[in-house]
Amino acid sequence: MNSAPSIQKLLDELERLPGVGPKSAQRIAYYILNTESDKAVRLADAIREVKQTVHFCSICFNYAEDDTCTICDSLNRDHSVICVVAEPKDIAPIERTGVFEGVYHVLHGELSPMEGIGPEELKVQELMRRLANGDVQEVIIATNPDVEGETTAAYIARMVKPLGVKVTRPASGLPVGGDLEYADEVTLGRAMEGRLEL
Amino acid sequence: MNSAPSIQKLLDELERLPGVGPKSAQRIAYYILNTESDKAVRLADAIREVKQTVHFCSICFNYAEDDTCTICDSLNRDHSVICVVAEPKDIAPIERTGVFEGVYHVLHGELSPMEGIGPEELKVQELMRRLANGDVQEVIIATNPDVEGETTAAYIARMVKPLGVKVTRPASGLPVGGDLEYADEVTLGRAMEGRLEL
Repeated sequence: MNSAPSIQKLLDELERLPGVGPKSAQRIAYYILNTESDKAVRLADAIREVKQTVHFCSICFNYAEDDTCTICDSLNRDHSVICVVAEPKDIAPIERTGVFEGVYHVLHGELSPMEGIGPEELKVQELMRRLANGDVQEVIIATNPDVEGETTAAYIARMVKPLGVKVTRPASGLPVGGDLEYADEVTLGRAMEGRLEL
Repeated sequence: MNSAPSIQKLLDELERLPGVGPKSAQRIAYYILNTESDKAVRLADAIREVKQTVHFCSICFNYAEDDTCTICDSLNRDHSVICVVAEPKDIAPIERTGVFEGVYHVLHGELSPMEGIGPEELKVQELMRRLANGDVQEVIIATNPDVEGETTAAYIARMVKPLGVKVTRPASGLPVGGDLEYADEVTLGRAMEGRLEL
């Protein structure tokens, strides 16, 4: 494999990807070497394009290609219900359940005194600003069901409740200590439907 | 995740990679979205570069950036011993054993009457041409220890032996029916050292 520095460079870059070790990096590199140039270049272009065009929605801080994301732009969504999640990646599993018709707010993290992450590091002020005009009826706090997620949920509930907005959390059904990203659709759907007021 | 078509495009391209399913594609996509632009672009560039600069060595048909590969160019290698392999990816595991100091010849396939792959589809004539000047003392046939690999080894042995060149095959030690690419260094190293004349 030492016969081409550019192959070594590709291997190094592939091994940086999550879940890709030396063996899978090699398999992917050989695939790229053997595939038609068109296909390989499409992958390279997709990576470049995503970095050039994707930034954060100015309303909910989900990924967006325009100033606001397609969910915030949609007239078919219920803008009076906001589901608060820790990361953009938490939106996809909730969307897949098909039971949620509201909009989102991405905190970009969870409170963690251990790691020095306080409310200022999260998009909490931005959430409060969205609630200021009184149009929002309910805030569902779908942070992860672990210590940081529960702490974050409790903090946001304390901030939001004085505004007279209903604050809920998806029902248990999510395995405690688990990771929202990996929940199956049925469990997470049930958890969303059976959400409890805090 | 439907909030940005460019993210969906990246996911589609990632899922084409070997060993990458929808979940790992998503993990890699989020990694690319979250990482600094520099790093992501380095990966995109490495993919493009490898497709632009890498082709096949005109001597051994391994991957090369120049007309010939670094192994064929090397004065530290024993050019009188040629190790014949099925694919370029089979060279890396043999190099890792550190016991082989000769050069390679990549067939780009193995004989398979079932799939209609005959000697003309492989770089067999090119191997015979390398043997024509009489400088080569030994040909080690390191095709996979499965039906196609054994058939290919027998065929090449029959072609090469009349030239008075020693023909060997790595010793057993490779698990039969296994895949050369995944052999561990020790087993494969022992197999290379204990190779038997055909």
